[in-house]
Amino acid sequence: MRRVRCIVQYDGTNFAGYQVQPGKRTVQREIEQALTMIHKGQEIRIAASGRTDAGVHAFGQVFHFDTPLSIPAEKWPIVIQTKLPSDIVITKADYVQEDFHSRFSVKRKTYCYKIYTGNHKTPFKRNYAYFEQYDLDINKMKKAASKFLGVHDFTAFCSAKTEIEDKVREIYSISVEEQEGDISIQITGNGFLYNMVRIMVGTLLEIGRGTRPVTSVETALQSRFRQDAGKTAPPHGLYLWSVDYE
Amino acid sequence: MRRVRCIVQYDGTNFAGYQVQPGKRTVQREIEQALTMIHKGQEIRIAASGRTDAGVHAFGQVFHFDTPLSIPAEKWPIVIQTKLPSDIVITKADYVQEDFHSRFSVKRKTYCYKIYTGNHKTPFKRNYAYFEQYDLDINKMKKAASKFLGVHDFTAFCSAKTEIEDKVREIYSISVEEQEGDISIQITGNGFLYNMVRIMVGTLLEIGRGTRPVTSVETALQSRFRQDAGKTAPPHGLYLWSVDYE
Repeated sequence: MRRVRCIVQYDGTNFAGYQVQPGKRTVQREIEQALTMIHKGQEIRIAASGRTDAGVHAFGQVFHFDTPLSIPAEKWPIVIQTKLPSDIVITKADYVQEDFHSRFSVKRKTYCYKIYTGNHKTPFKRNYAYFEQYDLDINKMKKAASKFLGVHDFTAFCSAKTEIEDKVREIYSISVEEQEGDISIQITGNGFLYNMVRIMVGTLLEIGRGTRPVTSVETALQSRFRQDAGKTAPPHGLYLWSVDYE
Repeated sequence: MRRVRCIVQYDGTNFAGYQVQPGKRTVQREIEQALTMIHKGQEIRIAASGRTDAGVHAFGQVFHFDTPLSIPAEKWPIVIQTKLPSDIVITKADYVQEDFHSRFSVKRKTYCYKIYTGNHKTPFKRNYAYFEQYDLDINKMKKAASKFLGVHDFTAFCSAKTEIEDKVREIYSISVEEQEGDISIQITGNGFLYNMVRIMVGTLLEIGRGTRPVTSVETALQSRFRQDAGKTAPPHGLYLWSVDYE
C-alpha cells in the first residue's frame, strides 16, 4: 500500500459541503465513489485537510488515500478525473510517506474571500463572490485587518457550535486588495475555527461600511464575546485557497 | 401604453436557451412571467434583439415591452428584479419611441467568445469559457480573423438549418486578445446567422491548433461550403456582449 496526496479544486455551489452526509451530494462522497470504482469495488476512504461548508469553494484542498495500485503519480489526476463530475477537478497528485496526514500534518492554511461591488449584481458572479451594494472604505478594512495578525484567542470569531476547547490561533498574514471593484481578502494562519474566516470577513465588511468602528477587532479579540464581532459572511465568497505542509 | 427597453444579463447554463419552448426553462419565459406578475396577471410579451442557444450567455441582451404602468425608467430594473431568479439580472431600462423594436432596429451586435488554456480544466470556468488543452498560435488566429472583416457571404459559416436566404453580412471589427492564458474573441457586425459566431470561432480554433491553414477563412468565404469551415465551437464560451441601435 502506498499513500497518495491529491490537490483538488471544487465549485461548492451544488454540494452540501465537503463531508459525507447521508443522502446528500458532497465532495467527499463523489471522490470516494470515483476511487472505489477505480479500485474495482474495493472501498476507498479519503482524508482531507478539513471540511468546507455548503457553497464554499476550494482552489487547493488537499486529501490523501492509500492504494495497492501501481499508477505513476502524474497519471493519478487523469485516472480519477474520468470518474468525477465537472465541478470537481484533481489538479495534482504525488506519493507521500506513510506518516503524512492531510489533516494532522498541516502547517498553514490560506483562505480567500471574494467580494464585488457595483450598481447591480451580475449573474456570472452570483455563486463565486459576495455582492456589496454600498461603497466600502478599503483603508479602514486594511487597518482593522492588521489587528488580526499574530497569536490571539478567537472565541469571538467562531461559531457557538465550535467544540474545540483551544481557541488560540496564529494569523501569519492578511491582505485586503481591491482591483476595479473586486475585493479579495486573503488570510493565512496555522489553523482556523468553525466559521472563523467568515466571521472575520463579516466584521471587516461592517467596518468597511462604517457601521462598526475600526477598533472593534481589538475589542472582540479581547472580550471574546461573539456579539462583539460582525455577522458571518455568506459561504459563496469563500475559497479554501491552499494548504501547506512541513 | 409606453414602450420600455431593458438591458439584461443572463447566465445561460441552466436555460434551454432564450426563446420560449413548451415545458422548458427559458430566459424569455422567466422575464414574461415576472412582467405578468408585475402587471397583476395581464399577460406581457417581450421582444428581444434575437435568440441565444442553450448554454449561451448574455452580457448585454436587449428586449422591449409595452406597459400601461407609470413607473420611472430607473425603477424598472429594481421592480422586475424582485420577480426574477438570480441567473437573470436587468441592468438598465429606459422609455423609447413606439417605433423602436429590439430586433428590427438593431444597427450592430457584438459577441464575445471566451477560451482558457492550461494544464487542466478548472471547475470555476467550466460553464463560462471553452477549455483548450493545447497551445494555440494566437498570431495565426489574428491573421485569419482579419479575413472576416468587411462584407461577405457567410453561407459556409452558418448552420444548415438557417432559413434566411440572404447570407451576406458585414463584420465591422474582430479582435483576438490573450491575457495570461485567457483568450477573448470579440466580433462586431451588422447581423449574425444561426451558429455563425460559433463556426467562425471553431474555424479560428483549428487554425490556432495548426490543424487547418490560415488561408482557410478566405477559402470557405469564397467556396460557401460548410465543410470548408471548422467545427461549431461549444455554446458555453459564447456571450451576446452588446447590441447597438440607431
